[in-house]
Amino acid sequence: LDKVASKHCDVVPVVVQDSRSGAVLICAYANEAALEATFKQRVACLWSTSRNELWVKGATSGDTLDLDDVFINCEQNSLVYKVTPRRKGACHTKDQYGNTRVSCYYRRVAPTASGSLQL
Amino acid sequence: LDKVASKHCDVVPVVVQDSRSGAVLICAYANEAALEATFKQRVACLWSTSRNELWVKGATSGDTLDLDDVFINCEQNSLVYKVTPRRKGACHTKDQYGNTRVSCYYRRVAPTASGSLQL
Repeated sequence: LDKVASKHCDVVPVVVQDSRSGAVLICAYANEAALEATFKQRVACLWSTSRNELWVKGATSGDTLDLDDVFINCEQNSLVYKVTPRRKGACHTKDQYGNTRVSCYYRRVAPTASGSLQL
Repeated sequence: LDKVASKHCDVVPVVVQDSRSGAVLICAYANEAALEATFKQRVACLWSTSRNELWVKGATSGDTLDLDDVFINCEQNSLVYKVTPRRKGACHTKDQYGNTRVSCYYRRVAPTASGSLQL
């Protein structure tokens, strides 16, 4: 198991939640630079762990998430960003009608009769 | 930056959310064993990255989180557990009245006038 999970790293998980609906939109990572950018720009900023760079959510897609509030957990190793989506979506995928999905968590996970997992 | 964040690991972040209130209660980690235990026991099970063992939430404290649903994100690298707390709390900390806190995210983060962060 790994260092993010064991708290010995530069990034922490960020739960991004719609302030109005309460929907969990995305879960990503932030470091100090991302959190500072979030407060300065008043939009959700994250740290892209694949590109290893600041990720201003919506900079490319337009699906900016306006910042309402930031909360930290008891152990100070994860964050919740409360946001208001500027447009309708937060996910980079589209639904069957070609609309950007509101949340990345659009798929239910359920076990099959045999006990294995089915997506 | 680290392997959980880069998706090359055995655990994924799990956002645990109250089905009724929508409150984010905790953010922790799960692996395949934890997810299977979650479905079998119908309570939120996680993987303790500090103890490196299965963590049946509430096994010690009594603050069990009954499972309602599991969702996975677009990129299949994080989960949301929708739960109903069996008692009142989910956090291991207590409030000023000695009651277990409902959620781990009880502290707002705000930047100071100088731009530094204040918890």
